[in-house]
Parts: sequence; structure tokens; C-alpha cells
Amino acid sequence: MKKGDVTEKTLSRRGFLKTAGGAAAVAGFAAGGLGFPSQAQAGPDALPKKWDETCDVLVVGSGFAGLAAAIEAKEAGASVMVLEKMPTHGGNSIINGGVMAVVGSDMQEARGIKDSPDLMLADMMKAGLDMNYPELAKMVAYQSKDAYDWCKQHIGVKFTDPKMLLHMGGHTVARSCPTSIYSGSEIVNKELAKFKELGGTVTTRTYLEKLIRHANGRVVGAQIRTGYRFPDAGSGKVKFVKVKKGVVLASGGFSQDVAFRMTQAPNLVAEVNSTNQPGATAEVLKEAFRVGGNPVQVSWIQLGPWASPDEKGFGLAPHFATGPVFSYGIMVDPKTGKRFISELADRKIRADAIIRTGHAAIGISDDEGQKSCGGPPGTVGKLVERGVVKKFDTLEELSKAHDMPYAAVKESVDNYNSYLKTGTDKEFGRYLQPDAKPIEKAPFYAVRLWPKVHHTMGGVQINTSAQVIGLDGKPIEGLYAAGEVAGGVHGAVRLGSVAVVDCLVFGRIAGKSVAKMKAWS
Amino acid sequence: MKKGDVTEKTLSRRGFLKTAGGAAAVAGFAAGGLGFPSQAQAGPDALPKKWDETCDVLVVGSGFAGLAAAIEAKEAGASVMVLEKMPTHGGNSIINGGVMAVVGSDMQEARGIKDSPDLMLADMMKAGLDMNYPELAKMVAYQSKDAYDWCKQHIGVKFTDPKMLLHMGGHTVARSCPTSIYSGSEIVNKELAKFKELGGTVTTRTYLEKLIRHANGRVVGAQIRTGYRFPDAGSGKVKFVKVKKGVVLASGGFSQDVAFRMTQAPNLVAEVNSTNQPGATAEVLKEAFRVGGNPVQVSWIQLGPWASPDEKGFGLAPHFATGPVFSYGIMVDPKTGKRFISELADRKIRADAIIRTGHAAIGISDDEGQKSCGGPPGTVGKLVERGVVKKFDTLEELSKAHDMPYAAVKESVDNYNSYLKTGTDKEFGRYLQPDAKPIEKAPFYAVRLWPKVHHTMGGVQINTSAQVIGLDGKPIEGLYAAGEVAGGVHGAVRLGSVAVVDCLVFGRIAGKSVAKMKAWS
Repeated sequence: MKKGDVTEKTLSRRGFLKTAGGAAAVAGFAAGGLGFPSQAQAGPDALPKKWDETCDVLVVGSGFAGLAAAIEAKEAGASVMVLEKMPTHGGNSIINGGVMAVVGSDMQEARGIKDSPDLMLADMMKAGLDMNYPELAKMVAYQSKDAYDWCKQHIGVKFTDPKMLLHMGGHTVARSCPTSIYSGSEIVNKELAKFKELGGTVTTRTYLEKLIRHANGRVVGAQIRTGYRFPDAGSGKVKFVKVKKGVVLASGGFSQDVAFRMTQAPNLVAEVNSTNQPGATAEVLKEAFRVGGNPVQVSWIQLGPWASPDEKGFGLAPHFATGPVFSYGIMVDPKTGKRFISELADRKIRADAIIRTGHAAIGISDDEGQKSCGGPPGTVGKLVERGVVKKFDTLEELSKAHDMPYAAVKESVDNYNSYLKTGTDKEFGRYLQPDAKPIEKAPFYAVRLWPKVHHTMGGVQINTSAQVIGLDGKPIEGLYAAGEVAGGVHGAVRLGSVAVVDCLVFGRIAGKSVAKMKAWS
Repeated sequence: MKKGDVTEKTLSRRGFLKTAGGAAAVAGFAAGGLGFPSQAQAGPDALPKKWDETCDVLVVGSGFAGLAAAIEAKEAGASVMVLEKMPTHGGNSIINGGVMAVVGSDMQEARGIKDSPDLMLADMMKAGLDMNYPELAKMVAYQSKDAYDWCKQHIGVKFTDPKMLLHMGGHTVARSCPTSIYSGSEIVNKELAKFKELGGTVTTRTYLEKLIRHANGRVVGAQIRTGYRFPDAGSGKVKFVKVKKGVVLASGGFSQDVAFRMTQAPNLVAEVNSTNQPGATAEVLKEAFRVGGNPVQVSWIQLGPWASPDEKGFGLAPHFATGPVFSYGIMVDPKTGKRFISELADRKIRADAIIRTGHAAIGISDDEGQKSCGGPPGTVGKLVERGVVKKFDTLEELSKAHDMPYAAVKESVDNYNSYLKTGTDKEFGRYLQPDAKPIEKAPFYAVRLWPKVHHTMGGVQINTSAQVIGLDGKPIEGLYAAGEVAGGVHGAVRLGSVAVVDCLVFGRIAGKSVAKMKAWS
């Protein structure tokens, strides 16, 4: 080693030796000397002999969180690289429904709705069974207005008219603001436009293979694959990126990673579909664990019991399932023709019960029930047209078409109708809508229901600066995470429309935090 | 390096170089060469310059699982070291209630009870919300009889008379066999005696600080501290143990590790006590994660809502809470004097609800209700004598003694009494015992209830050979786990009396598996 290679300010090769406990320690690895790194984290990685690229900030993922981080870091003067493994930008955010929970939006104001950050926080904690990290949930509730204003004023996102403000399940008041096109793409595309305006680019088909740490535990670079073809792990060309400030993990959840999600919930077999895009897999989260990130609530996986196997992704069936079936109809097991769970039980309980039967459940409604269908105007018509919801003149035809024993189906419907009279569901204690009418008016409607994996609440631990926290309770220097890859914001259950704001709030925090980090080289 | 140092069979220094990808790769760490280890696990560790001790099998923990593993490995001819960090052997097993779920025991036979492994498996899966690893749960159910016979015949454990066979919550039939002294110590002490008879010893006050891996990922040794004084991490003397076959982690759960459990369930603050011994902490589990073990369901933590803060550990209060309060009495929030949750709601829901109030709940019963108290004969008397349960002539005195608004308490009792007449709990829909009598007969009884952390269902992933599974889905060579440190057997909820048999079954499997491993040196 030449003396000239070393300066005090850089993590030079000499720096490595010092940190790891002296030359003997490192040499020990190759030649038998004694020397353990002092940190509790996993051991350091070898450095490449040559870095192919250099940046201040490396962002992994180009959804809501990743682009928010990229914009903030760029605006703070950092050089930023954004990696996206898929052929197109946007991750799962771009197919998201584009509704954002906000306290104190102009939409709430126009509607005269009183709300407070503490009320939103309480809603989040209640849904989360108090398993949320209170300090993280608080950031989301308290900064929701700022994130919304940033969307509107800074990057130009369009929202709907205030009269479309939504009151979603689990929220005490109406606070969920839909984007003008009811799609997350409205936000993601405006984020991308802003990032480009600032001179940034998103490199698609580029995969994070490995984080590279210095002996002192700091993340100093990444091994990536350019020209990567999802999901082929060996595809593309290996390159080494030197990262001077830090890496922001914004890689999303793992709803589509059957192997990994089955290690967390073995009943989520391959036959359980997902509302997510195919790239929602776990490799970046696992890499965060490999470098010592603390795993948080990884087994809390949200399933939608309102999904149909007869359409892709989220689809329209959830609107039909929620109103006409769960609130004004019944759901039966086609094998027995009988109900098997309260149609209004906890989302997880219902989904698990359907999976347990081993096949899709049949949701049944009638001409009265179908009127309660939500969603955009004409949803029932579209569902029938697409064959996702089927229409029958009689209950007998409906039963026959689904290979169900008609007598049992009839009995199930008759029983439900009788419960409406007495006000008590004797079988499952389900809440009965006061305005519900007996299921008896043709045409009758049926929809097949089979849960889809929708959101993974858990992830790697972060603090309020979006720093990744290690197993030893300390931040891993140079490593940040935001959005679905991070755990703890939502606890046991994420409320609808809180994912978008979570991603934006913590994406922005991560971008600001990492930009402030002192460059190591 | 001298040629003479190297043999084909050993993990010599040359072996290290080969596995890590050639001399250049390793040298690269110190001198800039390119070379990443190929495995997905965390990087290799430095080896000590000298091993202080050598064994075939290192067992960490001396409870049910650790000693079962130690006996099996020893009987298979391996040299075995057992480490126990606490001053005495037995871990949490020694204070366990000593009741074991067994299918087909002589006790069931004597009582003419029909049972099957599949029935026990179904019970476990139902309680586990289908989150159990079916193949692991199956091992426990199918091998329970073998583990029971091993206890009786091989190590001499005494069980009670068949008439004492218990039918515990969540089990379809009576299958829970109490040891003669209703304590896990009966099993642990007999295991220890057998291990000593085989020439083994348990080294107490000895702490596992670090697992040491070869560059190929295999666990080849451990850094330990002898003369360790719990919980002082820096105490004792560092030693290096060369482990030729493998390490068995049998270190138990982390119910007493406030910092770590709060990363999994932030509401389990320090004020939430535990039924466990103080040594039930997470450092070994975290070490398993550090070396790349996959985290499984770590946030599923079981709390007992039946615990009293006025006695230590599990105590006797659970018997009073379960019968007289939850089934034949009521539980109120002392601040309001009102009920706040169904007393028979899911264990987790109830415990979370009490914690949410921020203070102990008050369980109320009367002279009729107290007759339903379970536990050993004279339990109510003992509880009153110890001041855990308090006795009052009137409800007013009871309220006053607990700073509760009497009018509200009276109303709560009156409401409950009226529900008994109509058969419907209008407030919380609780199931009402058909033989319940109104709460009105003096003396009245009160017990303070504040949940205690009882069991941690999650842990590191294992397969049916008790090998630890890494984030890449492959076994980590030389690393095994059994008992509470391993995750997946119980899924969301562990049934009573299944912990003992889980530990014995997988402890024995781990001992047999590791003994079969080919020694690397």
C-alpha cells in the first residue's frame, strides 16, 4: 500500500484497517489473526477494485416514495441515481387507486369537515391494533397536509372536486382525497416530470443485487445489474456504484413474492393472487435484513376478501362484494351451499376462512342488493359485461351454474331472510343493515370471491428520519427506507388511502435526511 | 502459509481462500481487489487465532429443548457442550407449569378418550389462524406420544394419575398431561440427570456472544463469555469454541426483552410484565438473524389477560380471572367503573384493550362466582391471604377501595345481571354461561388485572430437521434451533400445553440431526 493513497478524510484502505481493529484483525481473515469487528451488525463486505459509477444518493424504486426521496435529495443539491428493476417506472404506485388521506385539505375545508392530526393518528392506531410505531404514525398524520400541498403546489397533481372527498372504512371522518383520474399514476407521473425537470433520470431494468458496507458498518455502495430482465436474477451486467451519502430503499412490498410471503404466512400459497404488480417481491427487503436491518411485523400481510379471481389486480369486484354481497347479500361455500363466516367479520378472518375452504366463495345478491354497489357509475353493468358478476333469473339457475346444491343455497337465503325479520343472525352474529331487504327479487347476482394479497404492513425498522435501524437498535449509517419496504407505520392493519401519504411523507423525509448526510468520499 | 498446514479434509486457511473466490478476493478486502462471496448470507467472520475449546455439538440453553438435544446428541456419540447464561440451569422451562399435550398417552387410554394426531394438528392450526408451518406443527402432533414415552420411560418423568388429565382451552379433547408436581422442573431436572449420567455437564453463567462462520457460510464455532453475570453484556471472559458438527440454539423466547419486543409490538412497554424468568431475552435470536436466519412471525407475542400485577410470574390469579371474573363476573375500567370489552374476547384483543386504558382493570365476582375458580384446592383462600384477590362485604366498599365511581360500578353490575335474564349481552355480545347467577351475593371479590407477556410465537425459521433456514431459503450449515427461539410451529397463537411438547420434539430432532452432521475438522 502506498502512503499517497491515504488521506484523513476518506474511507481509504488504511481507514478500513483502522476501523476493523488494526491490520492484524483484517489480515486475520486471510491468515489466522484474531479480530472481530466491534459492531453488532453483520460483517463488512469486500469492496470492488473499481467503482463503475458514483453518486451522492442511490434510490432503489421509482414509486411514490422513491421519487419523493429523489426530488428532495436533488433539490437539496445531491447527485441522485434512481434504480427501477422493471421495464417501466412507478412500481405498484402507478396502479394504485390514487386516493390520499389528508388532514386539513382544501377539500375538507370546502366541505366544512372538522378533523385533526390526532384524530387520524387515533384511527391509524385503532386499525393497527396499537402495534403501530406511534412516532412514525404521528409523522404521517401530522405531515399529511404538507404532503398534499406539495403534490398540488410543487409538482402539480390534480385532485377531484371536493364533493368527491371519500369517507373510507376505519376513518372517523371523510378525509380521503382522490386524484382527478382515480389513479396513483397521476402522482407518480407528476413526480417523475418534476425529477426530470431537475435533471434527474430513472434507470429502468436495473436491479439492486447487494449493498456494500464499509468495515465500520456504513453503506458505501451497491452492486447492481443493468439491463436486468425481471425476474431473471442472473440477467444483466454487474456494475458497482459508489454511494457517497446514502442509499434509500423504496422498493415497495412483497405481496407478489410467493416464496417469501409463505415463510411469513404459510397459508398464502401460490393460488392466492395479489392485487399488486408482479415486481412486488422481497429481494431488497431481504438485503436490508442481510446487512443487519431489524425485521418489523413482517408477518402482517393484508388480504382483500373482496377480490375476484375472474379479473386481474384490484379490479371492480371489490365494489360489488362490499355492498351487494357483504352488506346486503350473503356469501356461501359452493361445496355446501352454506354460509361459513360472518360476511362482515374482520378482513383477515374472512380472507383466511375463504382460503381454508380451498376454493372461491360465491357471493349472492339480488336486484335490491345490487343497488348498493359502489365504484364509478355503471360498475355493475361493467362487471356483468366482463363476466365477473353473473346474472340469473332464478336462484336455482344461479346454483346450477356454480355447481352448488340448490336446496342448501335456498335454505341459506331463507335463513338470512328470516334473520332480517328478527334482527339477529343466529349463525354468525353478523350486523344486519337496518334497511336491508330479503334476497328474493330477480335478477339474482353471483360473484366468485377469492382473496388477493394487497399490502405487506411489515418491513425493515426505520426511525423518524427514515434511517434503517439495525438489530442492535442503532441506525445503519448510509441506509434509509421509506414506503411499503419499511415496517411499523401501520401496525397490524393499514387503513385505505394511508399508503399513499405514508410513501410521500417518508419518501420526502428520506430524501431530506440522506442529502444532509456527510459524504464519505 | 506453509504447505504442511493444509489438508483436503479441513477448513484450513487455504480452504478459506478457495471458498471466498480465490486469494485475490480475500486480499481485496484489505487491498482493493474484487470479490464478493457467492452466497446470499451475510459475509463470513474472522476466525480466532486459537480455539480455547473444541466440541462436536454446542447447545445454547438448558431448558426442555436444549437438554433434549444434548441427550440425543450425546447418545449418538457426539461430544456436547451446553451453555447456560443464567446462574442456574432450566431457563423458563423450570418455572413452566409442566403440562404436556400428548395424543394417545396412557392417561388418555385409561380415560377412554379417542384422539388422533390429525385432531391435535387441526386444533393447533385453528388456534394458529392457519399461520403455522403445517409440516412443523405436524411433527409435534405426530411425535407427541413418542416424546411422552421418552419422558416416562427413558428419563423417568412422573405424571399425575389419569383422572387429572386436563381438557385445556382450544383442544378438542382432554389430552394435556400434568407432571406429578405440576411443574416443568420435573422434566428439566430429569433431563439434566440423564445428561449427567451420560457424562455431560451444563456450564452456567456462560453467554453466547457471537456465532463464527466459515467463508462458505457454515457455522464453525462460537465466541462465548464464561463467568458471565446476567445481564451485564461485558462481563466474563471471552473464549472461542470450535464446533465441529454444529450449534443448536435452544435459548427460548424474548418475553422479558422489553427493547426488542417493543420493536415488534411497540405497545408492550416496560410496564407490561412477563410471566417469564428474567433471562428470556432476544440476543441469541438476534444473532441467528445476524448470520442470515430468516425471521418468522416475530411480532406474534402472546399475552395473558388473566394476570395480576400483584404477584410475580404466572401466579395463581389466572385461575380466579378465568372462572369467577371472565365467565361468571365482569371486568371494568376503574376510571369509569364500566366494562370496556367482552370478558371472553380473544386473548390478544382483551390484553390490548387493558393496555390501552393505561392501568390495571378490576375483575369483579361474588360468592357464587368464586366457586368457579380453578387451580389447586384452596386457590381462592391463598389468593385472598396474599392480598392478590380482595374480599368486601358490599360492592360499595369494593368500589371505594379501588377508587372507582360506585354508581357506575353498580350500573355495570346491574346491566350484566339484566343480560343474564334476557340471554344477550347488549354491550359487548359476550357469551353468557347458562348456569351463571346474578352478581349479588356477598362477599364480593376484586382482582387487579394487567396483562403479562407469556410466549413469543415467532423466531428463526427451521425445517423439519431443526436446521435454521436462511433468507435465501436454504439451510445454514451447522446451525440448528428448537423450542421458543424457532418460529412457525404455533402460528398466530400457541395453545396451552403445546410448548412443552414442541420443545421436546424439536429438541430431540435437533440433537439427532446435528449428531449426524459430518464434522468439518
